[in-house]
Amino acid sequence: MDNHETPIESIELELPPPPVPVANYVPVRQVGNLAFTAGQTPTRGGLLTISGKLGRDVSIEEGQEASALAVLNCLSALQQHLGSLDRIKSIVSLTGYVASAEGFGQQPAVINGASLVLEKAFGEKGRHARAAVGVAELPGQAPVEISLIVEV
Amino acid sequence: MDNHETPIESIELELPPPPVPVANYVPVRQVGNLAFTAGQTPTRGGLLTISGKLGRDVSIEEGQEASALAVLNCLSALQQHLGSLDRIKSIVSLTGYVASAEGFGQQPAVINGASLVLEKAFGEKGRHARAAVGVAELPGQAPVEISLIVEV
Amino acid sequence: MDNHETPIESIELELPPPPVPVANYVPVRQVGNLAFTAGQTPTRGGLLTISGKLGRDVSIEEGQEASALAVLNCLSALQQHLGSLDRIKSIVSLTGYVASAEGFGQQPAVINGASLVLEKAFGEKGRHARAAVGVAELPGQAPVEISLIVEV
Repeated sequence: MDNHETPIESIELELPPPPVPVANYVPVRQVGNLAFTAGQTPTRGGLLTISGKLGRDVSIEEGQEASALAVLNCLSALQQHLGSLDRIKSIVSLTGYVASAEGFGQQPAVINGASLVLEKAFGEKGRHARAAVGVAELPGQAPVEISLIVEV
Repeated sequence: MDNHETPIESIELELPPPPVPVANYVPVRQVGNLAFTAGQTPTRGGLLTISGKLGRDVSIEEGQEASALAVLNCLSALQQHLGSLDRIKSIVSLTGYVASAEGFGQQPAVINGASLVLEKAFGEKGRHARAAVGVAELPGQAPVEISLIVEV
Repeated sequence: MDNHETPIESIELELPPPPVPVANYVPVRQVGNLAFTAGQTPTRGGLLTISGKLGRDVSIEEGQEASALAVLNCLSALQQHLGSLDRIKSIVSLTGYVASAEGFGQQPAVINGASLVLEKAFGEKGRHARAAVGVAELPGQAPVEISLIVEV
């Protein structure tokens, strides 16, 4: 199937392996009932599945899939930290960074790929506050990076 | 009066109607005594009042007014969520994203439009920690986007 | 010694004077046991020690030193707010913005300069969740900007 024809709803909620930090930080830090994830990009096994900028190299549909994978990496890190995603009471906030070529203004559509994963996985308690912004560059030319704050 | 002659102090603290999310997220999420807003742009009735980049299309004065309107949208969302802005004990932090053309480095001046609104509305308890950064692009070519964390 | 030969580990943990906000915000806001810092750039005495973009004007080594100084400014602000850095129980999260020229994707290497400072200063409790992103421009053409959330 052509990637462009894959509705975002069909993305399987199969968690990738927990992401391993490539530098001196940790995937999740918790204080009280708030857990903060590191920013995650669309990687599997430490390798980006896609790179480039929205509005030039990467289509909106590809960007949605990339943001879905990035947030699944956040969830995988949370699962490893918490033992189970069932311990998540709500998704509080999501910050979504989209590598954006000149003139690209559809960051909300791209980051909605991640928001839909959270809604599918957690229902009403998965509905979060969100900022979606267009940045110049992301690590390794990733198209998107996503971080979460969750209530546990 | 020419917009450029409008001192930022004259901006009325009249809240716009609560912003309606255009995708699968919510305007405010609260955990305990912390409320997190979604990122807001300078919209009224869902439409941007201004677009373009600072340092190219949008003057600093226009950017200050845009950041004032963006933070008023955050406050409008908080009022809808909390019932009254009187329930806000302090503004904790503000993240301000400024769509910036090559070489534009006056993000603090632009975002100060929002900070002054908060100081005017809340006095000492409105004084917040703040990050102001220059991004490549924002949703719909908005010049600024602002999110808040507040104590309730 | 050539700056480029200075290993990051050799950076002294001497705190610069507390940064003074140049606009209507504060360096630190605390709610309960969470303290939020303003975004800090590599300044001493209010002046940037370096400016420009990574991938064009600023080397990775210079960027690491800049991010180390920026996070030391965060720590200096926290020391002023808390009275002593000994009151910090853990570093929760770090957001690192890197002014990035077209095609620069090594934001994690740059921001690791700040992460290593935190690890050196706080050991295990200094290990934090982290997002590193590449932005278009930063205040005064700073190469990096860093904000922290810490547990007190």
